[in-house]
Amino acid sequence: MRQGRFESKLAPDAAELNASVGFDHRLLPYDIEGSKAHARMLATRGILPVSDAEAICAGLDQVRAEWERGELELDPQLEDVHMNVERRLTEIIGEAGGRLHTARSRNDQVATDLRLYAIDQTKNLRAALRGLALALVAQARNHVDTLVPGYTHLQRAQPVRLAHHLLAYVEMIDRDRERLADAARRANRSPLGSGALAATTFPIDREEVARALGFQGVTRNSMDAVGDRDFAVEIASACALVMAHLSRLGEELVLWASQEFGFVRLPEAYCSGSSIMPQKVNPDVPELVRAKSGRVFGDLVALLTIIKGLPLAYNKDLQETQEPLYDAVETALACVRTMTGLLAGARFEVERMRRALDEGHLLATEVADHLAARGVPFRQAHAAAGAIVRRASERGVDLAALGIEEMRAAAGLAEIDASLLAVLDAARAVDRRDVPGGPARARVLAAIADAEARLKE
Amino acid sequence: MRQGRFESKLAPDAAELNASVGFDHRLLPYDIEGSKAHARMLATRGILPVSDAEAICAGLDQVRAEWERGELELDPQLEDVHMNVERRLTEIIGEAGGRLHTARSRNDQVATDLRLYAIDQTKNLRAALRGLALALVAQARNHVDTLVPGYTHLQRAQPVRLAHHLLAYVEMIDRDRERLADAARRANRSPLGSGALAATTFPIDREEVARALGFQGVTRNSMDAVGDRDFAVEIASACALVMAHLSRLGEELVLWASQEFGFVRLPEAYCSGSSIMPQKVNPDVPELVRAKSGRVFGDLVALLTIIKGLPLAYNKDLQETQEPLYDAVETALACVRTMTGLLAGARFEVERMRRALDEGHLLATEVADHLAARGVPFRQAHAAAGAIVRRASERGVDLAALGIEEMRAAAGLAEIDASLLAVLDAARAVDRRDVPGGPARARVLAAIADAEARLKE
Amino acid sequence: MRQGRFESKLAPDAAELNASVGFDHRLLPYDIEGSKAHARMLATRGILPVSDAEAICAGLDQVRAEWERGELELDPQLEDVHMNVERRLTEIIGEAGGRLHTARSRNDQVATDLRLYAIDQTKNLRAALRGLALALVAQARNHVDTLVPGYTHLQRAQPVRLAHHLLAYVEMIDRDRERLADAARRANRSPLGSGALAATTFPIDREEVARALGFQGVTRNSMDAVGDRDFAVEIASACALVMAHLSRLGEELVLWASQEFGFVRLPEAYCSGSSIMPQKVNPDVPELVRAKSGRVFGDLVALLTIIKGLPLAYNKDLQETQEPLYDAVETALACVRTMTGLLAGARFEVERMRRALDEGHLLATEVADHLAARGVPFRQAHAAAGAIVRRASERGVDLAALGIEEMRAAAGLAEIDASLLAVLDAARAVDRRDVPGGPARARVLAAIADAEARLKE
Amino acid sequence: MRQGRFESKLAPDAAELNASVGFDHRLLPYDIEGSKAHARMLATRGILPVSDAEAICAGLDQVRAEWERGELELDPQLEDVHMNVERRLTEIIGEAGGRLHTARSRNDQVATDLRLYAIDQTKNLRAALRGLALALVAQARNHVDTLVPGYTHLQRAQPVRLAHHLLAYVEMIDRDRERLADAARRANRSPLGSGALAATTFPIDREEVARALGFQGVTRNSMDAVGDRDFAVEIASACALVMAHLSRLGEELVLWASQEFGFVRLPEAYCSGSSIMPQKVNPDVPELVRAKSGRVFGDLVALLTIIKGLPLAYNKDLQETQEPLYDAVETALACVRTMTGLLAGARFEVERMRRALDEGHLLATEVADHLAARGVPFRQAHAAAGAIVRRASERGVDLAALGIEEMRAAAGLAEIDASLLAVLDAARAVDRRDVPGGPARARVLAAIADAEARLKE
Repeated sequence: MRQGRFESKLAPDAAELNASVGFDHRLLPYDIEGSKAHARMLATRGILPVSDAEAICAGLDQVRAEWERGELELDPQLEDVHMNVERRLTEIIGEAGGRLHTARSRNDQVATDLRLYAIDQTKNLRAALRGLALALVAQARNHVDTLVPGYTHLQRAQPVRLAHHLLAYVEMIDRDRERLADAARRANRSPLGSGALAATTFPIDREEVARALGFQGVTRNSMDAVGDRDFAVEIASACALVMAHLSRLGEELVLWASQEFGFVRLPEAYCSGSSIMPQKVNPDVPELVRAKSGRVFGDLVALLTIIKGLPLAYNKDLQETQEPLYDAVETALACVRTMTGLLAGARFEVERMRRALDEGHLLATEVADHLAARGVPFRQAHAAAGAIVRRASERGVDLAALGIEEMRAAAGLAEIDASLLAVLDAARAVDRRDVPGGPARARVLAAIADAEARLKE
Repeated sequence: MRQGRFESKLAPDAAELNASVGFDHRLLPYDIEGSKAHARMLATRGILPVSDAEAICAGLDQVRAEWERGELELDPQLEDVHMNVERRLTEIIGEAGGRLHTARSRNDQVATDLRLYAIDQTKNLRAALRGLALALVAQARNHVDTLVPGYTHLQRAQPVRLAHHLLAYVEMIDRDRERLADAARRANRSPLGSGALAATTFPIDREEVARALGFQGVTRNSMDAVGDRDFAVEIASACALVMAHLSRLGEELVLWASQEFGFVRLPEAYCSGSSIMPQKVNPDVPELVRAKSGRVFGDLVALLTIIKGLPLAYNKDLQETQEPLYDAVETALACVRTMTGLLAGARFEVERMRRALDEGHLLATEVADHLAARGVPFRQAHAAAGAIVRRASERGVDLAALGIEEMRAAAGLAEIDASLLAVLDAARAVDRRDVPGGPARARVLAAIADAEARLKE
Repeated sequence: MRQGRFESKLAPDAAELNASVGFDHRLLPYDIEGSKAHARMLATRGILPVSDAEAICAGLDQVRAEWERGELELDPQLEDVHMNVERRLTEIIGEAGGRLHTARSRNDQVATDLRLYAIDQTKNLRAALRGLALALVAQARNHVDTLVPGYTHLQRAQPVRLAHHLLAYVEMIDRDRERLADAARRANRSPLGSGALAATTFPIDREEVARALGFQGVTRNSMDAVGDRDFAVEIASACALVMAHLSRLGEELVLWASQEFGFVRLPEAYCSGSSIMPQKVNPDVPELVRAKSGRVFGDLVALLTIIKGLPLAYNKDLQETQEPLYDAVETALACVRTMTGLLAGARFEVERMRRALDEGHLLATEVADHLAARGVPFRQAHAAAGAIVRRASERGVDLAALGIEEMRAAAGLAEIDASLLAVLDAARAVDRRDVPGGPARARVLAAIADAEARLKE
Repeated sequence: MRQGRFESKLAPDAAELNASVGFDHRLLPYDIEGSKAHARMLATRGILPVSDAEAICAGLDQVRAEWERGELELDPQLEDVHMNVERRLTEIIGEAGGRLHTARSRNDQVATDLRLYAIDQTKNLRAALRGLALALVAQARNHVDTLVPGYTHLQRAQPVRLAHHLLAYVEMIDRDRERLADAARRANRSPLGSGALAATTFPIDREEVARALGFQGVTRNSMDAVGDRDFAVEIASACALVMAHLSRLGEELVLWASQEFGFVRLPEAYCSGSSIMPQKVNPDVPELVRAKSGRVFGDLVALLTIIKGLPLAYNKDLQETQEPLYDAVETALACVRTMTGLLAGARFEVERMRRALDEGHLLATEVADHLAARGVPFRQAHAAAGAIVRRASERGVDLAALGIEEMRAAAGLAEIDASLLAVLDAARAVDRRDVPGGPARARVLAAIADAEARLKE
């Protein structure tokens, strides 16, 4: 591209800063598909001889084959993967290779390749998320009848089913998958034909190329199309939320694997030892996954910063949007997949969870609800239950162990009688929570069935 | 809420850190609607006497009226807007006010209010973006025949129509509006009935409440529902992209308003003077808008950081998600609206734009395309055109002024003849770019009509 | 400032976007000090009559008094605090007020005010951090002999003293204070006299003004000085690290206050109850503090984004740097102070901590070290100890309970004999870790004394 | 490390997520130096036989030599660079290699290596920044007498010298270098001897090791030391500011290289062409550098997010702090160096700059200052000058061209007389700005001399 206009070569430091083959090699298969579709359309439109188009397509297939066999080395001197492919093509088929770039610019070419990569990766990520959801649902099926404290503020709050707890993550994943689908749909328009910024003087057929590449339409404004990386930001945002969810799951697994909680035994194959402490079985994977949320948040910040304040249309700054996008989707993919294996092999400590219900007065809400159902205004019922908890704490006993007399005395409420004792049972307390989205057995079974149906594809 | 269980009051510094009335007053109208719907449902289900529900609704209407008249002062000692409303309600209607919180927790209450606020604001923002798009389209209609250099790398690249340039922003706004609609759709489920984390023991009807509040359904898992702020992150992400787009527009307006470009005269009503330099007319509004992108990016980072690593279900950390959400949507709204006024009053300097086409050899691509169309491989055609540009630059003249002989000599190509001169005209160059999304007159007129149709609601 | 040059007034939406009195009122006292120093210097240099300078200073004192008495309302129509002060001054003293702005621009004026605010706040924050460190050291003094598991990967690792654990945070605070001092030192140069961007034509004495305001010198380049907000970024970065540290402390307090850990009882005055669960005592303050790290990280991102890509010298974008700076330092201040009160009142559960040492084989490293000290290569000693841990885990007993024979059998090492039992004691294990920075009793006492000495000011 | 305690191997996906040799190979030389110092100290203290220590040091030297010759391939199965080095060492010297890890953990080992790397890189970056400052000063020397418009709000404001403009960047670099030195000073303490978290039972000499490695002391708390990555955050923060400054410089170079400004001709060796537009000479390097600010801001966000909410002491999350640190310093280094070459070769268009002073009424401040010096209150003088500018703009002429009569009429001020014309000269206007930090010739020459003195090392 320097030919003709430039006297000097690119300085070595500038060349190094400029070179993108270290990362844009991911685009090679998309670049080749894009070029083949472009060449065929040029022939259909009579812009290129059919024989040239055929030579180009055959040559490109050979380039791809060489690449897949590991025989094609990308030359950083040629700056990017696009120039490398074109150069190799021209080596193979001669002059006709130089005709491929007719009616096209690197600006619309790279935008096309990047969109194809992005759409593909959202598919991969959605599939991986489906796998993780299936692992969660399978564990939920196993633990419909495992009771566990539900927490708020990391304080024991009310008893729930472990299945119910696990299904909360399935909801997050559901939103993630939908969000990725929305982002992919918005990305799914072909920018090819937008040229450098002002389309092209050749009578091309953009729709034909778009169809050949699986796009669902073409972009509507050439200047926007070459300068638009919204899809990268949007997909990175979706990945950031995926990672936020995994960081929550990772945090809980780290907590639950501690000696203090003891709620889960992680599969050894996902744990590491210590170089110095022989007893350690460390939850490295959930820790790393939790940390990698930071990495993806950083990718998102990088993308937003890069496009901040850029004038229309293409600016070289946009080259820098590639790496954060690659890193965001590939990090998310690796984390989702690894967590799937870990979760499938996790063993929940049912007995330990059950015992945890005994401490923390998790049934205090039952007392308040019971009184409210008998007509005591809820605020007053709440205060009465609080006084009973206070008395039990001072005595160091369970609510039930206080006895009706002492409860009534602590609360100062005549409405307290023997019927109260019937509500002080964790299993029954859970099943009384029988509303849509609640932890009652029937609701949880329905939620599992519903999730399985949604995940059947 | 401390009654019964606690001995001491909240420490003043803790109370100050805890208090949210400084910002959550925005939720007051939503809180009241939510409470009314909840109370009515409780009555329908026989959980509350109908008379209590009626008293509650009437009382809440009075609270709202007092608020709207500026007569209700929120007390930070009561921590948040929800407790303030309930307290005032109980002052007005007595004991029945204490029954309102039956079968509800602040956790599902605040989640409901926040979603209602968020959904409302996405509507406002979408409407404001529509207004901005209309202002752009109106200017585009005025400037179909205004030619202006299209830039890449901020170097003059190829001539386009000003209308085409402005329509690029309409595309961005189009995506913004669609993205906000997707986010709102995902947010549009009622969490009410999820209780503190494990739903409720009362036989409530979540669907009825959801319908009454205009939600399109209910959330599916109570633990997820009270701990979920994905909608806040997603809306803030959408706002971040809105602001990124405005920062680009702002940057261009600042550039174009400079003496060097001189492409636009901003309305004085949107400019400021200098305290010391009497001649200054500063583009404060586009500068502020450009900067405010940083603010919204920061809001997004805050939100993501806050939810990173949080265990299920509700944690107090979530209170901190409110301010960044408020700031993101309200900043975006103010910026979109102000830019609309500014753009409507902007005067583009048609003559100055026209003259800018004369310098920078913007028609060099025409030379390359012309040669390629005559069968010269594009890469060779490009090098030839580069050599011609080089010669013209050395001579300090236009391409056309070089003459055919010298062009041919510089390029060393026999294919160069008098037919080349015909392509060296900016207006014709633009109109030859006659593909979907291109700047040819007919294409731009169609794009304007298409945009107008989309914006008709 | 619009006078003369402008015909129209600022549009209402632009005025609202522009107005900064909602936040820059914090600068009022600094603005007045700066103006007084400027006026006196103008008189010294003969640029202003002495009588004018005296009138200005008296008038400014009155403005400040009115402000402190709450009698001065700032008018958003006047845009910022600087114009409000000048306007009120002119109302009070008449025409002489109009002479104050001689040889000064709002650009160097606001830069001066903001630096004075920033330097002041670093002092406040450093003092607050000292208070927090003192609270930690006081608790450490109380808990020199409290043993607690030290954790890595949230797995019990090796026993330490609680004092040692607490002192780790003192180290973080130490770095924070030093970092803030470095940032303040770099900020400590007066930009006044830099004018709008190119200094001034009046023969001012910048050094005199700098001295009067307590600066340690003057900035060296006028264009840099008016466009420089590095100090804001650097202070926000330091605040971000303060908050990162507090988020770690907050996380630990939340963990330790859980029923599972039970290591700490937070003062009730720093906890909150639940609207629905009467038993709850929630650690709201450490949760909020943990979350507020996100807020300050967001402020830092906002600042960096705002200055990205700004040309020299002053751009209106810089107005947007004020709020993130205010928010970062004021959030950090509030959090540090509140955590100080909370920590002072926290009660550590010594017995619960002691018991936690019994489970998790925390003395396995002692076995490996013992063998290594007897000549077994460490890697082999580590594997042997690992095998012993494995055997003990299978048996469900302590290491010591296994007995020498079985340990030797598990490890397959002749070096294992009765001398090994002597090392299997937590208290002695801690005291053998007798190196600088280690948890041995003498080292911890020395560390406390050292910290106290550093904190004595 | 799994030996003894673990039954199963690490799962392939977990191993991949865990492996750090893809990036921590940078630590190899530091790891070897650290291990040699450790081994020697162990021998001095009698913990290791001298012969073992000698074998270890010789073996480590061989490992390093193999690495430098490219003969040592790091095995991802061994997880990290530390285990690879130890494994290779043991292959070379046998059993003694297994003794090296006595009294050390990977936790203090990696903390040491990372600090050594970080300190080294701050030196490299400071040296590179010095080179950039020298290039700026050299250009400043060449352009002491080149006048150029100074801008605020990207509007022409007042004339300055190009040297003065360039020196503003030298100030930024000065702060960058100082900030990096402060960060390096704080990082400059040896964590070695902190063990896994609780130091070690062996009687090591931490100070000796620290001295041998060039540290200026030892860390003071073992739990803090292994969990502390403040130095990484602080250095990344400093890099973020370096990049913010470069983004400003990059923005200005892009602007100045545009046809509209035409203020600079960038060296062709730092520019690129277009794949389609033969005339293009694109400022790729300043664009990339501007964009790379986003990348480093992202690194900083990643680091802060990762450490948010981590409990003491070491958590696996910390492994994720390595890549952002590497990326931040290496990106900054590459950008600083490339910009140095670009600036050295940049050619400023002196004549174009000079002509730019003619339009924009840059001397309006002179009018106001002139009147203020004659006793007109500045606010009134400012308004009068504004009215004159307005009149000149309407007439489409220069201020001077208006003539005294018309100026007086426009301003309505008797103080306007022929003496005013004397101030309407750009060169003289610049030289009247004769205060420290101002653009007067003598001041700029002094500033250059001062900068050169500071940069002499």
